[in-house]
Amino acid sequence: MKPIEHADATPDVQAVYDDIKRTRGVPDVNNFWKMAAHHPATLRRTWESLKEVMAPGTLDPMTKEMIFLAVSITNGCTYCIRSHEAAARKAGMTDAQHGELLAVVGMANETNRLANGYQVEVDAALLDR
Amino acid sequence: MKPIEHADATPDVQAVYDDIKRTRGVPDVNNFWKMAAHHPATLRRTWESLKEVMAPGTLDPMTKEMIFLAVSITNGCTYCIRSHEAAARKAGMTDAQHGELLAVVGMANETNRLANGYQVEVDAALLDR
Amino acid sequence: MKPIEHADATPDVQAVYDDIKRTRGVPDVNNFWKMAAHHPATLRRTWESLKEVMAPGTLDPMTKEMIFLAVSITNGCTYCIRSHEAAARKAGMTDAQHGELLAVVGMANETNRLANGYQVEVDAALLDR
Amino acid sequence: MKPIEHADATPDVQAVYDDIKRTRGVPDVNNFWKMAAHHPATLRRTWESLKEVMAPGTLDPMTKEMIFLAVSITNGCTYCIRSHEAAARKAGMTDAQHGELLAVVGMANETNRLANGYQVEVDAALLDR
Amino acid sequence: MKPIEHADATPDVQAVYDDIKRTRGVPDVNNFWKMAAHHPATLRRTWESLKEVMAPGTLDPMTKEMIFLAVSITNGCTYCIRSHEAAARKAGMTDAQHGELLAVVGMANETNRLANGYQVEVDAALLDR
Amino acid sequence: MKPIEHADATPDVQAVYDDIKRTRGVPDVNNFWKMAAHHPATLRRTWESLKEVMAPGTLDPMTKEMIFLAVSITNGCTYCIRSHEAAARKAGMTDAQHGELLAVVGMANETNRLANGYQVEVDAALLDR
Repeated sequence: MKPIEHADATPDVQAVYDDIKRTRGVPDVNNFWKMAAHHPATLRRTWESLKEVMAPGTLDPMTKEMIFLAVSITNGCTYCIRSHEAAARKAGMTDAQHGELLAVVGMANETNRLANGYQVEVDAALLDR
Repeated sequence: MKPIEHADATPDVQAVYDDIKRTRGVPDVNNFWKMAAHHPATLRRTWESLKEVMAPGTLDPMTKEMIFLAVSITNGCTYCIRSHEAAARKAGMTDAQHGELLAVVGMANETNRLANGYQVEVDAALLDR
Repeated sequence: MKPIEHADATPDVQAVYDDIKRTRGVPDVNNFWKMAAHHPATLRRTWESLKEVMAPGTLDPMTKEMIFLAVSITNGCTYCIRSHEAAARKAGMTDAQHGELLAVVGMANETNRLANGYQVEVDAALLDR
Repeated sequence: MKPIEHADATPDVQAVYDDIKRTRGVPDVNNFWKMAAHHPATLRRTWESLKEVMAPGTLDPMTKEMIFLAVSITNGCTYCIRSHEAAARKAGMTDAQHGELLAVVGMANETNRLANGYQVEVDAALLDR
Repeated sequence: MKPIEHADATPDVQAVYDDIKRTRGVPDVNNFWKMAAHHPATLRRTWESLKEVMAPGTLDPMTKEMIFLAVSITNGCTYCIRSHEAAARKAGMTDAQHGELLAVVGMANETNRLANGYQVEVDAALLDR
Repeated sequence: MKPIEHADATPDVQAVYDDIKRTRGVPDVNNFWKMAAHHPATLRRTWESLKEVMAPGTLDPMTKEMIFLAVSITNGCTYCIRSHEAAARKAGMTDAQHGELLAVVGMANETNRLANGYQVEVDAALLDR
């Protein structure tokens, strides 16, 4: 399967591409969308969801992109790491913040396994919530 | 294996417990530390690392706790979800921010698999970085 | 470590290769088996298990390959995604079915994390089963 | 956080609950939705997506539920395993099919790691696709 | 689904139970086998594979059980952590060795994500192998 | 981001590189450290932790490296698989031991999912511990 370029796309796919370009202010959509376009319903639904979820809200876009990056690193998705690190930097993430993000992601993955390995019981105070 | 209480701990373990309580301003350490105390070197090393990594830096404590929570949710570690959601809320996370965090974590886990499933190639522009 | 070709293999490895080729009607075994051959007991055991598990039963081969692909996408195993997508297509999976499969895999990975994040309790009706 | 019951929900949340009940022909929504209701935008978006993705298409509902279950088992999400096993059975999955599904999920998780461990290269024939 | 006890099992299931008890020198099989018995082919195949793989070889049983435990902790499988920690201890694992095992598992999970996050290229010397 | 070579590094980074080279008896550090050097605090902390955790203790270095490799295979981290397989071999792991390790990792990943899929309850005898 190859990425579907704008010129080769059906009108409904082109409309999604155009909305992505307009919303993000970019000249072209990236390969993720050009592959999702093989199933137009997935393209449209995923874009509509992502547009809603990643829009500024009570969390700013940089924080949202850093959370996205933390998940992608944990899952080991190379494409997602590359694209969301770029998006987080575009949204303002500095080298120092990137370094701190990775340090937190590393410690979380370590302590998650220590908690599993020691079969730690949830503290009574946390269950009271 | 049972949690090791302060009264039953060796002096080196008590010293770590005391530093955790002082640093966090809490009356007691939680079960994670009382279980890690079964291997005092792990207790000390993990606490020293966590104290350093989670300290305010170029990222504020609430953002760090939200990243920690995002990883814990992705890995499905119940203990870690409970304790770091509590820590993030203590650091200021509101219900609305919690809702947005979960929405981002969900979308990241979904799109990570769409990127895997479509075997999306990294965009040339991202490799140029 | 390099793949072990038929000509360089011991007779017990060749016998497994021959059974794979006969069972699947293919002219050569793929790299997975040529690497597993470095530990002949693993080669034989894995092939015997896979032959039994993937044989037509109450689920047809295409459904079994799609389930295999869904797991491989979730785990992010590139080799497995490539080979089992090919196997599912050979067993009859269409482009549209592939698109629907990926959409389901994406939503399952998303909602798994929403269930984790909200720490949803199993419904009483489900525990009664 | 507690599940939000219909009587305590805002009208927009009630409208989603009502659509779930109507679409699925059930007297009440399950806990997943009652927790997602803490963030009404997530409730609505997730339901709209799931309704679209799980509707009959080129794959039948039982196959879709089995794929959902395979992912949930791989991720170890207890809530999701319980609820989607129930949904798959309601859609017609027999005990024998459940047994075959689990066997495939097990073998996929095993061979994914053998492929990782042996660092198997993608076969040339698969790259040509 | 409930565990299937010996008295309620078919002769082929009883035969597997009896072989597990004889091989391990235990008075009863544990719940894992009593659940797998719902699909007798899975019960038999899984037991035959596990008996072969976990037998003493070039790695001793305690080392094999510790590797099994490391994987189970990484995947967060509570049942597997409990049962394989017990098996490792029965095979000789001390408290100190358990502590060191968990420390290694924690560090591996941390550095796996640092390698992902920094997108570290495989060293030329390692590719030469 | 590019690996930071010794000649381009700050004195504190050089000091860590020198300690790694001295401790391991190697002429240069590998890419993992040259990337972690982008965040010197992470470089130093991770090295200090790894040096402590991987030192000979009640488990020998080869066993520790095999456990590290088992986790890396489970997580699908290519860099980590390559570097820790090399480290385990350098510590004495034979081809036969590597084969047995992979077989155990495979079976653990399979049975972890069978335990999830069958929702196996922890045996009373294991809870009594």
